[in-house]
Amino acid sequence: MDLTKPLRCIVKLGGAAITSKNELETIHEENLATVSSHLRKTMVSGSSSENTIGMDWSKQPGKSDIACPADDFGEHELGLASPFIVVHGAGSFGHFQASKSGVHKGGLDRSLVKAGFVATRISVTLLNLQIVRALAREGIPSVGMSPFSCGWSTCERNMDAVDLHGVSKAINSGFVPVLHGDAVFDDSLGCTILSGDVIIRHLAENLKPDYVVFLTDVLGVYDRPPTEPDAVLLREIAVDGYGRWSVIRPILPNGNKEVEISVAAHDTTGGMVTKISEAAMIAKLGIEVYIVKAATVHSLRALSGEIRGKIPDDWLGTVIRFSG
Amino acid sequence: MDLTKPLRCIVKLGGAAITSKNELETIHEENLATVSSHLRKTMVSGSSSENTIGMDWSKQPGKSDIACPADDFGEHELGLASPFIVVHGAGSFGHFQASKSGVHKGGLDRSLVKAGFVATRISVTLLNLQIVRALAREGIPSVGMSPFSCGWSTCERNMDAVDLHGVSKAINSGFVPVLHGDAVFDDSLGCTILSGDVIIRHLAENLKPDYVVFLTDVLGVYDRPPTEPDAVLLREIAVDGYGRWSVIRPILPNGNKEVEISVAAHDTTGGMVTKISEAAMIAKLGIEVYIVKAATVHSLRALSGEIRGKIPDDWLGTVIRFSG
Repeated sequence: MDLTKPLRCIVKLGGAAITSKNELETIHEENLATVSSHLRKTMVSGSSSENTIGMDWSKQPGKSDIACPADDFGEHELGLASPFIVVHGAGSFGHFQASKSGVHKGGLDRSLVKAGFVATRISVTLLNLQIVRALAREGIPSVGMSPFSCGWSTCERNMDAVDLHGVSKAINSGFVPVLHGDAVFDDSLGCTILSGDVIIRHLAENLKPDYVVFLTDVLGVYDRPPTEPDAVLLREIAVDGYGRWSVIRPILPNGNKEVEISVAAHDTTGGMVTKISEAAMIAKLGIEVYIVKAATVHSLRALSGEIRGKIPDDWLGTVIRFSG
Repeated sequence: MDLTKPLRCIVKLGGAAITSKNELETIHEENLATVSSHLRKTMVSGSSSENTIGMDWSKQPGKSDIACPADDFGEHELGLASPFIVVHGAGSFGHFQASKSGVHKGGLDRSLVKAGFVATRISVTLLNLQIVRALAREGIPSVGMSPFSCGWSTCERNMDAVDLHGVSKAINSGFVPVLHGDAVFDDSLGCTILSGDVIIRHLAENLKPDYVVFLTDVLGVYDRPPTEPDAVLLREIAVDGYGRWSVIRPILPNGNKEVEISVAAHDTTGGMVTKISEAAMIAKLGIEVYIVKAATVHSLRALSGEIRGKIPDDWLGTVIRFSG
């Protein structure tokens, strides 16, 4: 199924940005609320915090009442300015369960792996539901779509049987699909973990968004771990036709363009190298990728598409783009 | 994809049985725990409450610790005695949202309907996750599969695009799919509510279970609303090749076999008539259907398959079977 409108953006909500990394299964509520409000501003036409009409009509934990603005919908015009897809990582959800059981290594005939598969799916689904609810409270018509339930599977950890019909149909019907890293079946291993970054590359290849934004917990990609005192934020990285990348800005002191780079310290599925190589694969398609700190003015600007083509001097983040 | 082992049973967890009907979005915890323990006894070979190894390794609300028995899995052999599918209704989840917005009537171009679609899916997904967790805590390898995420849709409320590949693959891999009534796309209306009962009929037609059990909040099907003083529990109903049904036992005082029958007072999607006619459609396929009160000795016996062929005199419930 083709998209009836071009896909504007795929947004990755990094696990490190929207969960509290040191606390098991804990949402970073403040970041998630800010990110959700940024997404509302970017996605929903004519929206403001005053006229937002929430779509989460379920009880909030610890409260007995339901906020249902059904009566306010009379004349309300609600529309997505343009199609978006949201994909989130796991952060402090799912990781404990996956690593305890080794579900990423496969072997579903082992009881522990099978139990870990169940436990991992429960944990990431808990997170997915909380993110869908946060977006819905901002009036974003979001629908959770778990890769496992969508029937997606891998073969030797590469995406294999992937039918995008459901995602496309949701987008064409005016919804924002919210996908996530998930435990899935793998044709050779039995099962594995399909990471959010791999999902994004696959979606980008097939649905050709105008741009892709990775929201993370640091300003962007650094030349070394961002906790080190002399770490330099890389502003622009170019990717050539072979997927090789080099640093364009800033010009690094040692003249070395191929530095050991580092994104979020708490990216767990695959780590920095996977993230950069997935981003490079996307950029190679001619799609600009922005890696930027969540819940900041910089991420709002990246989401709005303001960075496309020309990077403002006062914008902090990393742009990865194709330069044939 | 064919099933590698024959499907033993499809279980419907009626919304009225597992939620508190008068309290919005409230699980009937006691019933759900008993039903989950019954399902464990029926499904998991060699299981007892002592050797149950839980598969919900997520935080319980209000608690900060996680129960992870990963170290106990060393020699533990875990196996489903035979394949099951669980389908649950909505009860006090989803209904409020669906009826406020009229999502069952379609019209996704209306903001209220679109918002109601989002809100309904959030509410039923909340319930699904709680049921998956309750089953997982009993050591049942359950995986939530939302019909919407599975890409199922309807046309004029009849099941239309339905790919059972994902469900079959989950079963063949030793998992118990947990499906539910959901808001889905409808090719003619835009959207509608796909009820758990309609899902069960479709699964039964295609996957041919040995038997189907409907767990509800009354003993079975009555000749009138079960709250009325003279209501008679119908023990056996026969369905002919045209799908017409008649009461075999008890012989009703007025000799009328085609009485106005009544199941749960709080069955919300479709009501009694839908439920009986769906059950009759299943029975017409030669598959026995048991309608029985959840969390009782009667439901445990029905789940175990003990009722097949011959109905014990001390068993309370309704059997619907084919009599060509």
